[in-house]
Amino acid sequence: MTPRMPSHDADLAPTFRDFVAALGAGDPRLVERFFLPGEQTLLGRGGGMVVGFAAIVEAVRADPLPAIAGLVQSHLREIGPDGTLITVTHRAPGGGRGLMTLLWENTAEGWRIASAHVDAPVPALDPRIWREAGTPLVAPQGSGVLDGLRLAVADVIGVAGHRSGLGSDAVLTEAATASVSAPVVEATLEAGAALVGLAQLDELALGTSGAGPVGMPLNIRAVDRIPGGAMSGVTAAVAHGQADIGLGTDSGGSLLVPASYQGLFGLRTTHGLVSTDGVTTVAPSLDAIGWVGRDLATLAAVADVLLPEAGHREPDEVLLARSLLELADPDVVRAIETITERWDSAVLPMRMIDLPRTTVEGWADTFRDTRQVEAAAQYGPWALAHQDDLGPEAGAVLRAGRAVGADRGDAVRRAQAAARAAVAELIGNGVLLVPTTATVAPTRDLGGAAGRRGRQRTSLLTGIAALGGLPTLTLPLATRRRLPVGLSLIGPVGGDHALVGLTRRLLAGGVPAFA
Amino acid sequence: MTPRMPSHDADLAPTFRDFVAALGAGDPRLVERFFLPGEQTLLGRGGGMVVGFAAIVEAVRADPLPAIAGLVQSHLREIGPDGTLITVTHRAPGGGRGLMTLLWENTAEGWRIASAHVDAPVPALDPRIWREAGTPLVAPQGSGVLDGLRLAVADVIGVAGHRSGLGSDAVLTEAATASVSAPVVEATLEAGAALVGLAQLDELALGTSGAGPVGMPLNIRAVDRIPGGAMSGVTAAVAHGQADIGLGTDSGGSLLVPASYQGLFGLRTTHGLVSTDGVTTVAPSLDAIGWVGRDLATLAAVADVLLPEAGHREPDEVLLARSLLELADPDVVRAIETITERWDSAVLPMRMIDLPRTTVEGWADTFRDTRQVEAAAQYGPWALAHQDDLGPEAGAVLRAGRAVGADRGDAVRRAQAAARAAVAELIGNGVLLVPTTATVAPTRDLGGAAGRRGRQRTSLLTGIAALGGLPTLTLPLATRRRLPVGLSLIGPVGGDHALVGLTRRLLAGGVPAFA
Repeated sequence: MTPRMPSHDADLAPTFRDFVAALGAGDPRLVERFFLPGEQTLLGRGGGMVVGFAAIVEAVRADPLPAIAGLVQSHLREIGPDGTLITVTHRAPGGGRGLMTLLWENTAEGWRIASAHVDAPVPALDPRIWREAGTPLVAPQGSGVLDGLRLAVADVIGVAGHRSGLGSDAVLTEAATASVSAPVVEATLEAGAALVGLAQLDELALGTSGAGPVGMPLNIRAVDRIPGGAMSGVTAAVAHGQADIGLGTDSGGSLLVPASYQGLFGLRTTHGLVSTDGVTTVAPSLDAIGWVGRDLATLAAVADVLLPEAGHREPDEVLLARSLLELADPDVVRAIETITERWDSAVLPMRMIDLPRTTVEGWADTFRDTRQVEAAAQYGPWALAHQDDLGPEAGAVLRAGRAVGADRGDAVRRAQAAARAAVAELIGNGVLLVPTTATVAPTRDLGGAAGRRGRQRTSLLTGIAALGGLPTLTLPLATRRRLPVGLSLIGPVGGDHALVGLTRRLLAGGVPAFA
Repeated sequence: MTPRMPSHDADLAPTFRDFVAALGAGDPRLVERFFLPGEQTLLGRGGGMVVGFAAIVEAVRADPLPAIAGLVQSHLREIGPDGTLITVTHRAPGGGRGLMTLLWENTAEGWRIASAHVDAPVPALDPRIWREAGTPLVAPQGSGVLDGLRLAVADVIGVAGHRSGLGSDAVLTEAATASVSAPVVEATLEAGAALVGLAQLDELALGTSGAGPVGMPLNIRAVDRIPGGAMSGVTAAVAHGQADIGLGTDSGGSLLVPASYQGLFGLRTTHGLVSTDGVTTVAPSLDAIGWVGRDLATLAAVADVLLPEAGHREPDEVLLARSLLELADPDVVRAIETITERWDSAVLPMRMIDLPRTTVEGWADTFRDTRQVEAAAQYGPWALAHQDDLGPEAGAVLRAGRAVGADRGDAVRRAQAAARAAVAELIGNGVLLVPTTATVAPTRDLGGAAGRRGRQRTSLLTGIAALGGLPTLTLPLATRRRLPVGLSLIGPVGGDHALVGLTRRLLAGGVPAFA
C-alpha cells in the first residue's frame, strides 16, 4: 500500500518510494541519499536521539536502520508549503510491525528527511542484554529491604535450575544446571528481590567493549556510544530500566567501567568480603562481587544485605593524585572538579598525594599479567580445546597467560604482592578519588587511534583497586555535553559501607549525580 | 532541561511545559487538552498507529500514555509559520528512557498536537506475552524441517526444568518443576525448533479476551483491538514476530479465535490425534493440540512433525451453511465471499447444506455445558480452595460446572455424544467453511452491548469443531478496512493434512491471505 499523495506532494511520492525500496534492500548509503545534510537533522530510535547528519551517518553505519518487508499503513500530513510528515507502519522480515515517523522537507536538491523516528519490532527479549528472563525468573524468597526490586545477575553467577554461559555459547552448551544458587543470589532473594534474568557479558568476562556473544547492548544514556564490558548485560539492564539491581563481578573495571559509561552507581566490594561461592571468577585473586543501580539508595540497600555486619572501617581523609587525574580527558576532569574544587573539608579532609606515573604504569602491567596468568590457569585446558571458538579479546588474554612460564609466573605473583602492599600503603585509611575511566564511553566504532589511546589511559586507572583488593564506589557525573562519566572512590579494605556513606553526604551536599 | 524555544515558538513553550507536566502527572484528559480535534490527528506507538481524535481518546483510555519522570534531551524544529516538531527523550519512573516525536500546530485555540509518536522504555520481556523467555530458553535437540524456527509454547505445556503457570499466579506458586517435556515439545525440538519461551494465557485457559494475569497483549495487527484469548501469549508472540510457531491447546476457539483476531494461520488438530501428555487441558473430551504461524509453510512444517504419518483422510467436497454465515457481520462475510463466491469447483465441489439455527444454538449449549462440567471436574477441589483468587471468567465457568448435579452431568454427556454424531454426519467427508469469528476483534473496551452480542454470535461458531473432535484450519483474510478476520476450514476426523493441502491450493489460486 503506498500512501495517498495529495497536491504539492506529488513530487515527494517517487522519493518516498525510493526510500522504502532502499530500506527494504538495506542500502548502506541510505542516510546519505535521503537525509537532509545539516547540524539539526535528527534520528531517534530505541529511546535515544542522534542529532546532526554526520553523527547519523556514523550511528547507522554501526547499527543499520531496520530492514522492512513492506508497508502496512501510511498517513501523510502536509505542514506549510515545504514540509510533509509521513507516518508508516511496516512489516518486518522476521514478522512483527515497525513504526516510522518521517519529516520530509522540500529543498533545492529535492525532498529530504529532516527528522526520523524509527521503531523496529521489539524481540521477545534483547539478546544483547539477556540470555534468559522471566516475570520473574525466580520469585523472592523472603521480604526485606529489597522488596519490589528487580535483580539482574550476570551469567557467571549460579542460579538453581539454570546454567551459567559466561558470555560464551561454547561454555553454555557444555554447562551443567546448577542445583543450588550462589549465596549472593540466595541472600538477595531472601531480602525480597525478584530475579528478572540472567544477563549477557563479554566472552568469559574478558572483553572490554560489551560486545557479548550477540552484540553490544545499546548504551541508553549515550546512544551512539558503547556500553562497555565485560558486564554489559547487567549494567544495560539497569540503565534501560529492565532491572533495578545488576549483580556481577569486577576484575579490574569489568563492572565499574560499564557502570560509568552508562551513568550508573556501582560498588565493587573489598576482595574476599562477599562470598564468590557459586560464581565463576576470571582471576580469583583479583575478582570481587559488585553491583550497580540507578540510585544510591538501591546500592546501599544491597550493601546492607550482602556486606557482613561487622569489621567495617571508617576512612579519615580523601586523597587526590595529580598523575591519575591527568590521565583523563579534559571533559572528564571538569566533571570531577565540580566535586574536588569545591570540596567541603568538613566531610573529610582532602590531601594531594604524589604518585609517579611510572609507578602507575608498573601496577597496570602487574594487574594485566596477574589477570592473564590466573585466567589461563582457570580456562587453560578448556581454552586449548576451544581455540577456534574464542573471540579476539578472550583469545589474546588466554594465549598471553599460557605464554607465561612457571618462572615468570612466580615473578608475577611476587610483583602482585608488592603492588598490593604499595597500594595499601598509598591509600592508608583514606579514600582515593580517581576518574573511573579516562574518557567518556567511546563511540561504537571505538574511535580509531585516539580511542585506543583513551582505553590505554583508562587501563592505568582500573587495575589499582583490584590489585589492592580494595572496595570502590563509582558515582555517576555528567560532562558539559551531558555524557555520563564516573568518579571512583577507592576505599581501604573494609571501607565498603563508608564509601556509601561518604557518597550519601556528597549527594546531600548538592553533588549533581547523572540521571 | 527545557527545550530551546526560538522566535515564533515563544507561545508554544508554556503549552509544551503544561503537556510535560500533564504527562508526568498521568492526567486522564491529556488527549482532550493537548491533541488537535480532527479526523487526521495521529497517535503512533508500539508498532501501530491510531488515526482520528475520537479513536485516540479511546485508545489512551484503554492504555494510557507512559508516565514520565523528566525530560533528558529536547530538539525543536520549526516547519513553516504554524508548525513545530519537538523530539524529546525522557526518563521513565521505573528507569530507562522513552522517546517522543510531537508535531505541534498553531491553531485558533492555541498549539495542539497533530501527530505523536510515543515510545516508552521496553521491559526485559513483555509480561502480557511471556512468563519466561530466553535466547533460546531451550536449544534445538536435533535438526529437521523446523530448523531456524522459534517456538513459543503456552504455559500449559510441560517443559523440562520449568513449571506450568496456566495463566494463574496461584497455580504457578504451587506448581512443581517438570522433569520431562511434553512429547509435542520434544518432537518440535528434535525437528530443529528453538524454544524461545513460555507464553501467557487467560486464567486456566478459561478466558476469551486475552487479559491474562498481567493484562492484554497488544494486538499488533489491529492496535486498538483485543488480541483474544485464551491463548493470547503464543498468538501475540507470533504476530509480534517474537516467535515463529505458537503451540497451544484449543478447547473451542481458545487458540483459533486469537489467531483470527491477530491475522495468523492456525491449526486445531483432530481430537486425540496429537498427544496431550504433559499438557494441562481444560476439558479433556474437547481440547486438542494446535499451533499458529504467520505463514502456511510454517503451519505445514509443524504438521509434518506432529501429525502421525498414517491414517489421513482426503475430503471430497466443501460445504457452506447459510445459517452459519449469517451469524457474521457484513464485513466478515464480504471477506469470506472473496473465496466462496469465486470458488473453483476444480479444487473441490461446493455444496450448500441446511443447518437450522436452533440446531447450532443447541450445540453451543452442549459445548458450554460440557466444558463447564469437565473444567469443574479438573479444577474443582483446587478452585474451591482458591475461590478468592479466581477472576470473573474462570470463576463463572467453574461455579457453573460445579452447579451441575450428577444427574444433569449424565444428561450433558449424552447430549455431547449426540452432538458429536450429528456434527460428524453433517460434515461427512467434507470440509465446512465457516467464519472463525462472527466479528473482527472487538475494541479494547469490548464494545458494550453490541460487542456482547457479537461475542455471543461468535460462541455459536467456535464450539462446532470441538464438539465433533474435528480438525480446523483458520486462514487469515482482511476486511475492506484491513482488519484481520479468519475463515475456518473444518475437516473430517483425520483430515488435518488435507486442510493444509486445500489451503495451499487456495493460496496458489490467488486467495489474498492477511499479511
